[in-house]
Amino acid sequence: MKGHVSHSAVRRLSLYLRRLEHLSAGHVETVSSSRIAEGTEATDAQVRKDLAYFGQFGRPGIGYRVAPLIRKLKNILGTARPWRVVVIGVGGLGQALLRYKAFGEKGFDIVAAFDTAPDKIGQTIGGVKVMDVARLPEIVDEQEVRLAILTVPADAAQPAADLLRRSGVRGILNFAPTNLDLPENVALNQVDLTAHLERLSFDVRHPGNNHRRNGNGSAAERKKLTTDPKN
Amino acid sequence: MKGHVSHSAVRRLSLYLRRLEHLSAGHVETVSSSRIAEGTEATDAQVRKDLAYFGQFGRPGIGYRVAPLIRKLKNILGTARPWRVVVIGVGGLGQALLRYKAFGEKGFDIVAAFDTAPDKIGQTIGGVKVMDVARLPEIVDEQEVRLAILTVPADAAQPAADLLRRSGVRGILNFAPTNLDLPENVALNQVDLTAHLERLSFDVRHPGNNHRRNGNGSAAERKKLTTDPKN
Repeated sequence: MKGHVSHSAVRRLSLYLRRLEHLSAGHVETVSSSRIAEGTEATDAQVRKDLAYFGQFGRPGIGYRVAPLIRKLKNILGTARPWRVVVIGVGGLGQALLRYKAFGEKGFDIVAAFDTAPDKIGQTIGGVKVMDVARLPEIVDEQEVRLAILTVPADAAQPAADLLRRSGVRGILNFAPTNLDLPENVALNQVDLTAHLERLSFDVRHPGNNHRRNGNGSAAERKKLTTDPKN
Repeated sequence: MKGHVSHSAVRRLSLYLRRLEHLSAGHVETVSSSRIAEGTEATDAQVRKDLAYFGQFGRPGIGYRVAPLIRKLKNILGTARPWRVVVIGVGGLGQALLRYKAFGEKGFDIVAAFDTAPDKIGQTIGGVKVMDVARLPEIVDEQEVRLAILTVPADAAQPAADLLRRSGVRGILNFAPTNLDLPENVALNQVDLTAHLERLSFDVRHPGNNHRRNGNGSAAERKKLTTDPKN
């Protein structure tokens, strides 16, 4: 890997991985870049460019081999080995995420949840034990937890983030609607749910701009796919 | 607006808007592109380029006027007038979103929620009434609802999306972990929570790639900002 990789490019790799896992579940063994692009927002040219950047080249007339490409993308994204993850803040959103099955399937094992409320501590939600936040440093250390999902109220987010950092957590997915001040050696991904709605608003207001490519393409699209060179 | 605007660009406009609203709350009246860029992932050059694309030009030595730029960004994003929004599926995530105050503040008024479970129908959560999904077409029509947040289980997502489309909803924010098949005249934003964790994983594995710019910049960054031409 050379140079800087944008977060948009990383996001596309996730979409390609999702698409390839779907194809693999349907016993597809080789695919064209066009077929990887279906259902993502990328063009087939973008797919080829992104994958070439990481040293993966499709073979003319054959395409990409699905299983090795899945392994390669997981290596790049860092999910080839599972991460151990904790959730801090067991309100409505925290509880919903504890019950969210897809995380475990994609390499993110939630090993513990933490809260300060006595009525929550001791509960088991989605198979995960809720503990007193005082035990966080001990659990993070024992279980080598490196990622955390922060779902506390905005005013509790910075102290919680500081505790996570001091305990050895290296990356935080923050749902609290507030900016966090963290040193550069802790990765931060701020989930902005309002921005998701704003993008939707933009797309409804500018319908001509919305070039969605569905998994179930039109007949014209399907024709195009079958005549495209497999690369 | 000319040509195609990428979703990455729309996402940046949301980040600029968030940043400008923060500055406006602190009674800042004019700003440099560098100051808008702080706390976003964009460079000051990117900010200038993005804003110029929509016809906004900072004035040398003065910069951008905050209040008109906020209005302009809201016009572009389509949030200058509030949207009426419904939530379908009042499980853990749906309930959390009903209590999420930021939506209303940013121009998205949740006017009703829908579910099929008798024990949920009739409840009021986050100030929003939960109704039988059978009433959805009537409420969407009466209240001119055009956006919906879908938080149903994966196997209920497509029928719910079809009902929303038939009722006149024009944009769907889908949290269900499944692809939806929708005509081009309905905008779709698929929220992939796993992709957010994958980006975090990537950033932890590639620390040199993580060029985060914090709201609270370093002394060197602050110095740089004060010597940059205001444009």
